[in-house]
Amino acid sequence: MSLKLREAVKADMGSVLILIKELATFEKEPEAVELTVDELIKDGFGESPAFKVFVAELDNKIVGMALFYQRYSTWKGKSIHLEDLVVQEDHRGKGIGNALYTKVLKYAYVHNVKRVVWDVLDWNTVAIDFYKSSGATVLKEWQVVHMNENALKKFVENNV
Amino acid sequence: MSLKLREAVKADMGSVLILIKELATFEKEPEAVELTVDELIKDGFGESPAFKVFVAELDNKIVGMALFYQRYSTWKGKSIHLEDLVVQEDHRGKGIGNALYTKVLKYAYVHNVKRVVWDVLDWNTVAIDFYKSSGATVLKEWQVVHMNENALKKFVENNV
Repeated sequence: MSLKLREAVKADMGSVLILIKELATFEKEPEAVELTVDELIKDGFGESPAFKVFVAELDNKIVGMALFYQRYSTWKGKSIHLEDLVVQEDHRGKGIGNALYTKVLKYAYVHNVKRVVWDVLDWNTVAIDFYKSSGATVLKEWQVVHMNENALKKFVENNV
Repeated sequence: MSLKLREAVKADMGSVLILIKELATFEKEPEAVELTVDELIKDGFGESPAFKVFVAELDNKIVGMALFYQRYSTWKGKSIHLEDLVVQEDHRGKGIGNALYTKVLKYAYVHNVKRVVWDVLDWNTVAIDFYKSSGATVLKEWQVVHMNENALKKFVENNV
């Protein structure tokens, strides 16, 4: 097999969206993806791109991707958030996920990032064990809070 | 009292760092803050600022701040992450935290953000109740993962 990792271009966003949906299905929220290919292109390739993507090509076909962007820690400084890392189900177990993970971490390292951050589902013990074995720490005390678009609209309307 | 909320400028970063340290102490990690005023100025006011800060001034003295930056959800689109929201202990209970919170959410709303995200410590029930009452959702299944600078260096050295 011929595996190649490279930075994504606009023309890859269709494949990237399919992988985003595959990950959402694995995460048991297949209906949650509202994003479109056009939005991915607009948001990722404008003047100040909102994210960066590495894709994994196997025999010239995209079978995996890692999407990440800059964050900021007020304790440590510039950070990177790994939003999605996904490999097509048919191609798991071939080291492609590990190659993408390594590529993102090397990118973070050469960019002098102080911390790489991501979220994991607590029942995904395979991923958790893998992350821990690579040197990452799973925080126990922190919980993630979301205010979604509808709640945001309602809050603002009630606090004019 | 005369409360004023405004966007922070470089000269405010000393006061902002003091508030960052006050929050870290509240979060039981007073030694975790490695950031300096110079780094805050460099990272927050360059060509592509890594964050934005609103400060709360009471009688012309900074007594609170909210620091946030853009993130990206592959399900919803452009998001904002509220990294820190803190009010000096002496000035809590005066509605200043609520005013900062409202200002950030209004900023998100007018910028067409699809989601506002933040993290909360699971023992901080006062904050959790406040967030829930405002329409936010505390996710139960997601855990936060960190790879810090030293672990990142070690990982990259072991995966050349």
